Amino acid sequence: MAAGAQGWMEELFGDREIADLFTASALFASFARFEQALIKGLAQAKLVEATDAVRLIDQIAAFNPDPAAIADATLRDGVPAPDYLRQLRASVVGPGSELIHHGATSQDLVDTAMIEALGKAGLILSKRLDDLIARLAALAARDGGNRLQAVTRMQEALPFAASDRIAAWQTPLEELRARLTRLKEQTRILQFGGPVGDLRALGDQAALVAETLARDLDLRWPGHSWHAARGPMIAWAGFLSELTGALGKIGQDLGLMALRGEQDIAFSGGGASSAMPHKQNPVAAERLVALARLNATLVSGMHQAQIHEMERSGAAWMLEWATLPQMCEATSAALSTAAGLVGSIDRIGQFTGDQQ
Amino acid sequence: MAAGAQGWMEELFGDREIADLFTASALFASFARFEQALIKGLAQAKLVEATDAVRLIDQIAAFNPDPAAIADATLRDGVPAPDYLRQLRASVVGPGSELIHHGATSQDLVDTAMIEALGKAGLILSKRLDDLIARLAALAARDGGNRLQAVTRMQEALPFAASDRIAAWQTPLEELRARLTRLKEQTRILQFGGPVGDLRALGDQAALVAETLARDLDLRWPGHSWHAARGPMIAWAGFLSELTGALGKIGQDLGLMALRGEQDIAFSGGGASSAMPHKQNPVAAERLVALARLNATLVSGMHQAQIHEMERSGAAWMLEWATLPQMCEATSAALSTAAGLVGSIDRIGQFTGDQQ
Amino acid sequence: MAAGAQGWMEELFGDREIADLFTASALFASFARFEQALIKGLAQAKLVEATDAVRLIDQIAAFNPDPAAIADATLRDGVPAPDYLRQLRASVVGPGSELIHHGATSQDLVDTAMIEALGKAGLILSKRLDDLIARLAALAARDGGNRLQAVTRMQEALPFAASDRIAAWQTPLEELRARLTRLKEQTRILQFGGPVGDLRALGDQAALVAETLARDLDLRWPGHSWHAARGPMIAWAGFLSELTGALGKIGQDLGLMALRGEQDIAFSGGGASSAMPHKQNPVAAERLVALARLNATLVSGMHQAQIHEMERSGAAWMLEWATLPQMCEATSAALSTAAGLVGSIDRIGQFTGDQQ
Amino acid sequence: MAAGAQGWMEELFGDREIADLFTASALFASFARFEQALIKGLAQAKLVEATDAVRLIDQIAAFNPDPAAIADATLRDGVPAPDYLRQLRASVVGPGSELIHHGATSQDLVDTAMIEALGKAGLILSKRLDDLIARLAALAARDGGNRLQAVTRMQEALPFAASDRIAAWQTPLEELRARLTRLKEQTRILQFGGPVGDLRALGDQAALVAETLARDLDLRWPGHSWHAARGPMIAWAGFLSELTGALGKIGQDLGLMALRGEQDIAFSGGGASSAMPHKQNPVAAERLVALARLNATLVSGMHQAQIHEMERSGAAWMLEWATLPQMCEATSAALSTAAGLVGSIDRIGQFTGDQQ
Repeated sequence: MAAGAQGWMEELFGDREIADLFTASALFASFARFEQALIKGLAQAKLVEATDAVRLIDQIAAFNPDPAAIADATLRDGVPAPDYLRQLRASVVGPGSELIHHGATSQDLVDTAMIEALGKAGLILSKRLDDLIARLAALAARDGGNRLQAVTRMQEALPFAASDRIAAWQTPLEELRARLTRLKEQTRILQFGGPVGDLRALGDQAALVAETLARDLDLRWPGHSWHAARGPMIAWAGFLSELTGALGKIGQDLGLMALRGEQDIAFSGGGASSAMPHKQNPVAAERLVALARLNATLVSGMHQAQIHEMERSGAAWMLEWATLPQMCEATSAALSTAAGLVGSIDRIGQFTGDQQ
Repeated sequence: MAAGAQGWMEELFGDREIADLFTASALFASFARFEQALIKGLAQAKLVEATDAVRLIDQIAAFNPDPAAIADATLRDGVPAPDYLRQLRASVVGPGSELIHHGATSQDLVDTAMIEALGKAGLILSKRLDDLIARLAALAARDGGNRLQAVTRMQEALPFAASDRIAAWQTPLEELRARLTRLKEQTRILQFGGPVGDLRALGDQAALVAETLARDLDLRWPGHSWHAARGPMIAWAGFLSELTGALGKIGQDLGLMALRGEQDIAFSGGGASSAMPHKQNPVAAERLVALARLNATLVSGMHQAQIHEMERSGAAWMLEWATLPQMCEATSAALSTAAGLVGSIDRIGQFTGDQQ
Repeated sequence: MAAGAQGWMEELFGDREIADLFTASALFASFARFEQALIKGLAQAKLVEATDAVRLIDQIAAFNPDPAAIADATLRDGVPAPDYLRQLRASVVGPGSELIHHGATSQDLVDTAMIEALGKAGLILSKRLDDLIARLAALAARDGGNRLQAVTRMQEALPFAASDRIAAWQTPLEELRARLTRLKEQTRILQFGGPVGDLRALGDQAALVAETLARDLDLRWPGHSWHAARGPMIAWAGFLSELTGALGKIGQDLGLMALRGEQDIAFSGGGASSAMPHKQNPVAAERLVALARLNATLVSGMHQAQIHEMERSGAAWMLEWATLPQMCEATSAALSTAAGLVGSIDRIGQFTGDQQ
Repeated sequence: MAAGAQGWMEELFGDREIADLFTASALFASFARFEQALIKGLAQAKLVEATDAVRLIDQIAAFNPDPAAIADATLRDGVPAPDYLRQLRASVVGPGSELIHHGATSQDLVDTAMIEALGKAGLILSKRLDDLIARLAALAARDGGNRLQAVTRMQEALPFAASDRIAAWQTPLEELRARLTRLKEQTRILQFGGPVGDLRALGDQAALVAETLARDLDLRWPGHSWHAARGPMIAWAGFLSELTGALGKIGQDLGLMALRGEQDIAFSGGGASSAMPHKQNPVAAERLVALARLNATLVSGMHQAQIHEMERSGAAWMLEWATLPQMCEATSAALSTAAGLVGSIDRIGQFTGDQQ
């Protein structure tokens, strides 16, 4: 159906587990959760009868959207929500059904779905980062006392311990791990503003509906909509690119150590060459650098996408969609690449017989 | 199998026709053409017997690579060619079979495949650009004499003719159309250098093999390999982003004209809003801006990817793969979006009764 | 002497107050503070006699570096510190003078100077941000009850209050203001690692020297050097570009409101046209957009600059120097531009007679 | 007066000779040439008397603008031309003086000045590129037959001749040298369109005035204005970043060769370390990488700046001014850095006694 891929070697830049969070079906599942939670909120505010709410929620749960029709409509509408809602409204009946999506707008659905996907991505990244940090700790424990030639500005500087270089890899990752927890919490926020962001249609009940809705989705209601203020998305983009930057630096180092040879490092595995069987290319190290530079490129697009026109810019919003999911994938791919790479190190530096 | 997509609304950024040029099967088909042409070149140089060459070419034609195995190996090797060749070698028998890939390297296959895909993309873009230019000409013919308010620096300036604004859209596209023809010709070049770019394994026969190989693939042999000199790829990236820039400018204008309203433009179609049925969002116009800013972002990655280390950098090369195919898709998507958008214009400016 | 400017209309992108923080003389003053504080640290660790320390500190205070010689040497050394130190050493005499710069390296001086400059820039930005926030509050107080047409996706949506749009400008700025305080605190850290980052030359006294040094400079010692881990610089770059993004969004809105005309906004001031005296161009609004897009471009360079090679990369480090100071200037310029622009608004929206 | 610099180590990123082309006084000199040539064009079209034209041209030649007043006004007007013209008009008297700037607009002056500056920058770059190419040829002649270890994907591949690696540096530069000649010719075009780009004020005389004006400035009149079609600027930006990319690749290689040591390269010179006197840092090589990555960052801003709104976007235009001059400086700086670096190579590879 769709396209938009990076093409023929996309396994190098993508990550299946993250990609699953950004499929059309994941999006529609998020939409359904939102519309169900909104009905609960409207019921809380006595705008929908409690018994009607139960029935409507069941109907939403049973609804199966037609993804091909939505994909087509997305090209016309610039967002999948209108056609999703058209289909949903056609499949929901009975009292209260006219209040489906009441007070909300497309952006409420899509931004909240993005927030949910980012939250889930954060869980995956956390786990992978924990694993990588553990591997680096094990490496430092095993080889930290080995002697290594420090290199500054592309020149041998002074000898130091392998643990010194490894610590320069560990410290930023540990800081980023702690930041990820805060970032997930800080960006666990509902988008809810209605057509022009002011929740006017809900009148005095707006905050009650919003808070109920947020609670049901395990999000926070920040007290206002943020349709054209993209701070949470920028925070994620910055974090992702900083993390791939830290991993790219490890990759750069390991590639250079592979070039310097046995005195610096011994790997098992490594990539085959089609023409030179003697080579063991430090492919994973190169991949870390490529992914870091990819995210360092894409982060610029996210910053450009801050400039919404008025209450909502389709242009700025689409630029986010084209950019942020691939940044998530690149980051997750980089984490698993780095774990594999660190795991493939047989020895770093030279054993000196000293105790560390 | 793979990931690397832009996720849930990828139909907004991608293009099926272009995506088909960058699938794994398109890549392997290109590899097969290269290896067949190389056998012809080796035969021309009397390194393979003519009758063996015919048989080997048939065997290559009959070879069916296992894409899942290659995808797995790509993660290890950083490039699909080694495992493709391992499989190919296992399926080709008889005298001369040891000369499969003789003198070549992975990069020769992959870069040549990229050149072939770009050439085909160029054909698609040419056709779409022709169509768009024709639609703009028809628009100018129909509405060019209408009166329009020129706007400079976000302020009404002076009245002028609709044809004046349309001309500012047409001229860059016409120049880019002419450039596309030159670009296709200029970048129709074979990559062929062998492991370290010097074709040493072919000795005195190198030029003969290279020229035969190039001719068979309908490419030119530039007289040397260009493994670490990415001019042709940069030329494509620059062209693509300049073209989406020109289209994005049209989108920006049409979005602003839609905002200014009936005095400037009347559309049919336009996107639905989930909450405001009275709106006709200029979605295609916004999409053009988003695609322009996406390519303007990605072009930076392509320029970063110029900095190869020594004779071949996996890191720089992967960054190209992550970037250039999506730039092609974005460009093609922008062209068809623009054609649809221009086609949906019912009237531009105000009819004055004057002859233009 | 030097160049590196943005050229002929640099007043549009720069800021004198910030530029003064990044002059060569500001840099050398920071170097001098560092070397004095280091002597205090060495004295604390009994590596320098207390009386010698007093004399050395006085000599450093009296030292006048030759900036032209340092500028020349910077081209050779890639960093101003070595020649600064050569000159300093030549001008300092007496016992302990051989311990000038003991345990430190060029990067300790330069990174600490950058941290100091960023801290001072933060003070300027805080003040300007406070001023802008106050102006927006005054605007909301005066005109917030006026009626305004909300615009989504370049189409009139529904009417709302002027305060709704103004709130969408205020909220991100208030969040960024709070973040700036945290950022200044979080990045108030000493760089100190010596040649290869391990402070080996100071042995057991390293932490004592580092802590004394940090305290004297009113910085924190994070417990380790961070030569190749650029988190603090990335945090600044991200903040700066997020802030100009928030301001650029205001500029974009005000430019569009100027285009829509009297129903949306009335300004006093505005730019002259060389050819159309009737125009009042919303120049400050455009400038905000330009500065936002400039920083959104440059932030990518900062992310690319994360990838240090081994213990220190001159290439990555120089890329930071070429990028971060101009981001600071652009941000400060944007803040004062925004303050002027908001101050020039005579009326926003339409007075309705309603109380807000 | 102004700011906008890259700050304290700007000598690393700037180039005095190029910077001189982008000073305010260079800009005003270009404005004066334009206004003089315009008077000639108007005289040719009989709109100004020939004798008046001579006098007016003399008066323009004698005019001394007040740069501080123009700098101030630029902040208000967003462009220096209106205040320059206000001053000029105040200083020019007599018949025809009311026709100063007749038919033209600010953008005609500024874009033409940019074109002139780029043309002059092109001359400087040509000369430096010629010099660098000559140095590389001399290096190849002296050391080309030496043996060198080819390196692919950060692993030793096969031995080859030093001339092979040098050729990979030479070929792109030679192609870029030829392209620079074409680029200078292709972009030697007048900007002339008047307030809204249609030269309406000049009626039937527009082409005659434009052609006379162009000829007098040694430019071509492309037959139309190009206020919002930035092709020529994009062409320059792409060229500059491609050139620094080619130089950055040389820098990357020489840095890696310096890391690999004596087997690959011997330099004289090299940067001092403040803490490790034994080191000879390959500073110029690092600088080439930094400048390449700076331009690869900035080129994105130029592509973003393609998206003008309607007939003229101050926002997009300012983004160009903030970006393109520093790209020129970075490129020129990179060329002279590369020349110095190549000149400092004492030996590349290992002498084998073979004749090449």
